[in-house]
Amino acid sequence: MLLLGRGVSSLINILVTSVGKRVELLRYFKAELAGIGGKLVGADRDRMAPGLNFTDFSYVIPGIYDQDYLPRLLDICRKEQIKAVLSLIDPELSVLAHNRALFEQAGVCLVIPGAEAVEACYDKYATQALLMRRGMEHIKTYRGLDEFNDRSAAGEVAFPVVVKPSFGSSSQDVYIVQNHQDLVCLYNRVDRPIIQEFIAGRDYSADVYVDLVTKEPVAVFTKLKLSVTGGGADKALGVYEPVLEEFAVHMAQEFELLGPVDMDFFWSGNRLVLNEINPRFGGGYPLAHHSGLNFINLLINNLQGTANKTALGNYKPGVSMVKYDGYFFKNEPDCALICPESGESG
Amino acid sequence: MLLLGRGVSSLINILVTSVGKRVELLRYFKAELAGIGGKLVGADRDRMAPGLNFTDFSYVIPGIYDQDYLPRLLDICRKEQIKAVLSLIDPELSVLAHNRALFEQAGVCLVIPGAEAVEACYDKYATQALLMRRGMEHIKTYRGLDEFNDRSAAGEVAFPVVVKPSFGSSSQDVYIVQNHQDLVCLYNRVDRPIIQEFIAGRDYSADVYVDLVTKEPVAVFTKLKLSVTGGGADKALGVYEPVLEEFAVHMAQEFELLGPVDMDFFWSGNRLVLNEINPRFGGGYPLAHHSGLNFINLLINNLQGTANKTALGNYKPGVSMVKYDGYFFKNEPDCALICPESGESG
Repeated sequence: MLLLGRGVSSLINILVTSVGKRVELLRYFKAELAGIGGKLVGADRDRMAPGLNFTDFSYVIPGIYDQDYLPRLLDICRKEQIKAVLSLIDPELSVLAHNRALFEQAGVCLVIPGAEAVEACYDKYATQALLMRRGMEHIKTYRGLDEFNDRSAAGEVAFPVVVKPSFGSSSQDVYIVQNHQDLVCLYNRVDRPIIQEFIAGRDYSADVYVDLVTKEPVAVFTKLKLSVTGGGADKALGVYEPVLEEFAVHMAQEFELLGPVDMDFFWSGNRLVLNEINPRFGGGYPLAHHSGLNFINLLINNLQGTANKTALGNYKPGVSMVKYDGYFFKNEPDCALICPESGESG
Repeated sequence: MLLLGRGVSSLINILVTSVGKRVELLRYFKAELAGIGGKLVGADRDRMAPGLNFTDFSYVIPGIYDQDYLPRLLDICRKEQIKAVLSLIDPELSVLAHNRALFEQAGVCLVIPGAEAVEACYDKYATQALLMRRGMEHIKTYRGLDEFNDRSAAGEVAFPVVVKPSFGSSSQDVYIVQNHQDLVCLYNRVDRPIIQEFIAGRDYSADVYVDLVTKEPVAVFTKLKLSVTGGGADKALGVYEPVLEEFAVHMAQEFELLGPVDMDFFWSGNRLVLNEINPRFGGGYPLAHHSGLNFINLLINNLQGTANKTALGNYKPGVSMVKYDGYFFKNEPDCALICPESGESG
């Protein structure tokens, strides 16, 4: 499924797409690649994405559902002699995973799990359905109001419940709902909504690296989220508990993940339950990196054809991370490009 | 109302409270103060606030409604020979403005408008009510469902409307509502809700500095918000239009503001209408600073007893600013302080 570098070219150039505002991650990539003579290429559909200014070369590309998107990406891969492609947003993972053959033909490794695994992560209903099918701890999840009402009448689930989009991100449109009237109102406001039991517990997350050669999780970093806004942790603390590490390893195997993965879960009483998986570098990865793990190095080893030995437990817990706002400024010689209809003053 | 520095002490030490994650602003403050031998003191109730690590001295203080809050703040002012206090969050402006006498007695200048002005800004209903009373362009705003229903039946306002908290911030709990059923549901979910007409237009904001000596707005920076998440602009572009500048100056005068101010407004067709005012440094101030205005310098002049000449129009438009995530890391020798109940694993 994955094309690894052995024997092709020793050059390791990496393309990261949808770089957005993930400046810190890009800095790590650039530094590691510089160390081995490789280059970091960035892409985003938004020419103002700050990340575009923190790579070696950058491209503004069409949106992922645009017909020019794939041809353009493949062009960049050829032109920049790209060895591997990663994406930082979930809808793009799905588009790329379904077009893996195009990249393999071009000799490019897509650092993304298989399409089935990507879909099981992308669709939050599918995530819980997979766990349920396998008889594992899961969050009771319903897709329709009728289904919910039936199960609720049967005593399977009770208010409060959570209404959210199946394909949401950044905690957008996530509502805690106390009664049936509010449920109907909010359910109808949400795009492709699901209804879940509400779990009061602590939020944890794990950064996992699944080796591309051995297909085994070789690094796991777990953190307690201390404050969450907009989906990502504003404040987090690195922790080490064997039970959390085992849980993350187990999930990575069950979902057949590959490469860098971010997973969120709740610890509620003696219940440890997966909330969601993003099969890509998560927003909180900088804490794992800062605490002593280096997924980029593990990835580069893999791209050079080398399997990584396990690095489980190889980090320093007890480091906290807090997020703040950084700013990037740019002179805009032609403002009309940014605000083409700025003629209100006329 | 304000104590200015003339003749007291030439030392300019400034205390900024609720520093939160406003790292960039604190960097500007620290640099300016270092240049005149002053120091920047920071305070926050959250010992993990990243801003606390970017000042000369920092204090963790009680919450603003705690009985120890004011005594502790006054202690810090005495100990650090503070000349002036600023706050970066709205509820604190209100508490401070109502206790101005305590600070004046201690020889400390509160860089905050009078309590009446602060309340007119803090309460979004009051903001529009003031504009309406003075016969100015305003957003139709209602406080009760009955009042809204009456006016709606009379044809004064129509769906869609906006439901939001009177005292909200960061765009939390702001809903666009299309029908009466959703209105009732969402109205009841929001804390002290108001209902407003929906205005489709472009979002602008202005950073204004009202001189503490002359009480005149001496600097105005206007920007077009290109992308907004969580209330603040993710992407903004500095613009210069006399009509926007005049509007901001006018609003600063009408509301009797003082010191640094952030105001948001809509430009919809030929209608220019104030949305809200925060009588403090706004999150987007770095763009004004980067474009050539320096409110901190204007403030220091004032604290030295000097009135500022007008700096209206003295900036370079056409600079864009994009926000990204910066991270601050810290070893936590005693994690129990952060997560005192971390015993779930036991």
